[in-house]
Amino acid sequence: MISEKRDLPKKTEDLSGWYNKVVLLAELADYGPARGTMIYRPYGYAIWELIQKEMDRLIKEKGVANAYFPLFIPESLINKESKHIEGFSPELAVVTIGGGEELKEKLVVRPTSETIMYEAYARWIDSWRDLPLMINQWNNVVRWEKRPYLFIRTTEFLWQEGHTAHANHDEAWQMVLWAMEMYTKIYEDFLALPGYAGRKSESEKFAGADITLTYESLMPGGKALQSSTSHDLGQNFSKPFNISFLNNEGQREFVWQTSWGLSTRSIGGMIMAHGDDGGLRLPPRLAPIQVIILPVGNEAKIIDFSRKLVDKLKESGIRAELDDGENETLGSKINNWELKGVPIRIEIGPKELEEKNITAVRRDNGKKQSLKQGGLAEQIKNLLDDIQNNLYKEAKKFLEANTKEVNNYEEFKKLMAENRGFILAFWCEAPDCEEKIKAETKTTTRCLPLEAKEENGLCIYCGKTAKHKWLFARSY
Amino acid sequence: MISEKRDLPKKTEDLSGWYNKVVLLAELADYGPARGTMIYRPYGYAIWELIQKEMDRLIKEKGVANAYFPLFIPESLINKESKHIEGFSPELAVVTIGGGEELKEKLVVRPTSETIMYEAYARWIDSWRDLPLMINQWNNVVRWEKRPYLFIRTTEFLWQEGHTAHANHDEAWQMVLWAMEMYTKIYEDFLALPGYAGRKSESEKFAGADITLTYESLMPGGKALQSSTSHDLGQNFSKPFNISFLNNEGQREFVWQTSWGLSTRSIGGMIMAHGDDGGLRLPPRLAPIQVIILPVGNEAKIIDFSRKLVDKLKESGIRAELDDGENETLGSKINNWELKGVPIRIEIGPKELEEKNITAVRRDNGKKQSLKQGGLAEQIKNLLDDIQNNLYKEAKKFLEANTKEVNNYEEFKKLMAENRGFILAFWCEAPDCEEKIKAETKTTTRCLPLEAKEENGLCIYCGKTAKHKWLFARSY
Repeated sequence: MISEKRDLPKKTEDLSGWYNKVVLLAELADYGPARGTMIYRPYGYAIWELIQKEMDRLIKEKGVANAYFPLFIPESLINKESKHIEGFSPELAVVTIGGGEELKEKLVVRPTSETIMYEAYARWIDSWRDLPLMINQWNNVVRWEKRPYLFIRTTEFLWQEGHTAHANHDEAWQMVLWAMEMYTKIYEDFLALPGYAGRKSESEKFAGADITLTYESLMPGGKALQSSTSHDLGQNFSKPFNISFLNNEGQREFVWQTSWGLSTRSIGGMIMAHGDDGGLRLPPRLAPIQVIILPVGNEAKIIDFSRKLVDKLKESGIRAELDDGENETLGSKINNWELKGVPIRIEIGPKELEEKNITAVRRDNGKKQSLKQGGLAEQIKNLLDDIQNNLYKEAKKFLEANTKEVNNYEEFKKLMAENRGFILAFWCEAPDCEEKIKAETKTTTRCLPLEAKEENGLCIYCGKTAKHKWLFARSY
Repeated sequence: MISEKRDLPKKTEDLSGWYNKVVLLAELADYGPARGTMIYRPYGYAIWELIQKEMDRLIKEKGVANAYFPLFIPESLINKESKHIEGFSPELAVVTIGGGEELKEKLVVRPTSETIMYEAYARWIDSWRDLPLMINQWNNVVRWEKRPYLFIRTTEFLWQEGHTAHANHDEAWQMVLWAMEMYTKIYEDFLALPGYAGRKSESEKFAGADITLTYESLMPGGKALQSSTSHDLGQNFSKPFNISFLNNEGQREFVWQTSWGLSTRSIGGMIMAHGDDGGLRLPPRLAPIQVIILPVGNEAKIIDFSRKLVDKLKESGIRAELDDGENETLGSKINNWELKGVPIRIEIGPKELEEKNITAVRRDNGKKQSLKQGGLAEQIKNLLDDIQNNLYKEAKKFLEANTKEVNNYEEFKKLMAENRGFILAFWCEAPDCEEKIKAETKTTTRCLPLEAKEENGLCIYCGKTAKHKWLFARSY
């Protein structure tokens, strides 16, 4: 099945061709029959399940409860917050027929759930005792996509969306920050994707938010990828949706809200950032299979030994699998598991049955490592941690090497013409400069890093006073 | 918030009124703004998560992998299997506008995923080595509903759907049976809902199946509820979708397929079957909160003691919670947790701080039980098991008392006019008799129990030879 690996383009020569092909060949995903849709195949979905498991734990620990709201939003409801509908209306899929009849009111397939959730929040919240209300859902959303790209841009995708309502702005803002910290943790510790957490500019923020925080990572081609955001919604929704509460002085106030989401786009980023010419290189913490055991030949003794080894590793909580299929050569199997990015490969031949050591091959750097059979699970766990850290370090090095401070617009244009990653430059925060930079260089402001301090500088474009260095890049 | 409990109708007097009200008051669910849709609120969704956790484990143990297929099915694709589309077409929601434009081909919002999945199966399956292909997904589906009823009948609902493809019919049939056994286990051991697993009649089977197995439980009003089915699809889909494989003799054959699903409807059944005039009675294994601890008064010592108790129980894996809210009276709290069906309530007052025993109140029968504080977690676990078993036994008794063998049609009509549960009666299996019985008594064949043996009898309707006693009932 995966013998077409020879067709995989070189990643450095044709990133986009390599990406599409590796996603299909590694059986992470496939195209759906309706334009722009995708199928999450078991191997790709298993990665999402591992992300879910970790995030779900963190979300629940924070006291946010899971729930599920309807897919269909009546048109009149989604129209209630004007900037929100303005931002989303070009991307909507609309149901006009239900149960064989033309509907009186059209139903929008949710592109995000603010409006459908807040209609209920207005009914559920009455007093300060009902606050904070903190709900998350794991669901599918639909945003019409004209230039689909597996995982990165698809008409339907999977994500989680958290929606909280608070009695005051400070508490809401702490929640916005908490969500971005959680995402940063998921990116750094699981996806092994370093990046910048920061604030979006006015023109790039979420339709309906006062402030949007984003996590921006860098892809090998030099483009930025955004796959999680956290929004301070202020009272922008609570006013039109009339979500108010009696405070403990008996006065009615509108609630302060947040929403935050991370999507399966993050998987696309992980594939693109870490893969190499041989295929995927999965970070061990998100690898559905962490160790693949390949028996050499089909001698019963060897198969039996391999099977016991798998069981032993599984008992220690390592996701180990045996590939004892008889219809493939060892070489073809090695190719296959390399393509699928399994972090550690162990071959078991007659030698391993006799000696005290076995050899593990790392997917990240191809190095062979001799491990003692006594206490093997512990050594494997350490090796997996080391691979996880190494992938992160490599990506961090790439990010740092491709983040440049620039003080003049000519240099800015030159770097961006070459797609050279992130540029840190003073910007006066006037939308006009941002727009012109975008028109002239296809580059957008990505964010103002959270840790940025106020400085005195001159806008890279207009030369007027600027207080902060912003991050610019081309993006997906 | 839940002080409206006094408005709860008596279950025995107004089942449907009681049901709607208890679902809303216990905050299990709420209505969505689009007709027929519902919101799964955190307390209701947590029950679904507990069902998912258990089923997901069983499904994966069987070697079935999770995946996710698109929401949108092009019209031409869903039309491919004629009986399938004939069955589903009255229930479809259809997207006709995408990204601001009228679509050339309409997109159906999945009512079930056979067609969207099998288009891909045709591409993925090529040889006997690719079989069996066994995939499951947890997702939302849409079936237009004109008489919505929370959990029981809604336009959108949540479920899992398993879809497998096999090299021969026998293997497929074993899978159909396996799924029904798994569902039976979930019903009996978790939902505490006894019922009958059996085969649907030709007219009642799934649109596109050769054989449909169903699990039918009995609701207090005497109506049957079906909330899981397992289908032997034969080659009905593999032929129009051209899902074929090269067998190991080099010949091309069509695969044999199964599909099986269990939906959130099961939660509706659980609520209706076990609840009483005080509200829900949740089976402990699916109760989001198994033990509620209520401090009496707000003395620091008592709160502290209660908190430690909760921690201790949690450490032992018991889902315990503390209700130390100061804005409600103890009586109102007791009412609330009774309404929410929490299996065990423990009140902590000054006495409990001094004595060696504490008192647990069972939600299922209201009985008080004195427990030793030493080894409390073990005793609580036993008590929870006992409550679980007791709810099952009560329901089993009700099912048995309301399943009657009937040999004459007059008696059949009389019982059914009173909605008196299941009738076991000989039926000749002619669709004509089944139709007339339905027209005259609003009663349908529910299933032929799996363990039914061939007998010699006379059809309850036409008096001709009949080989089996079928189960009849009115149904949701």
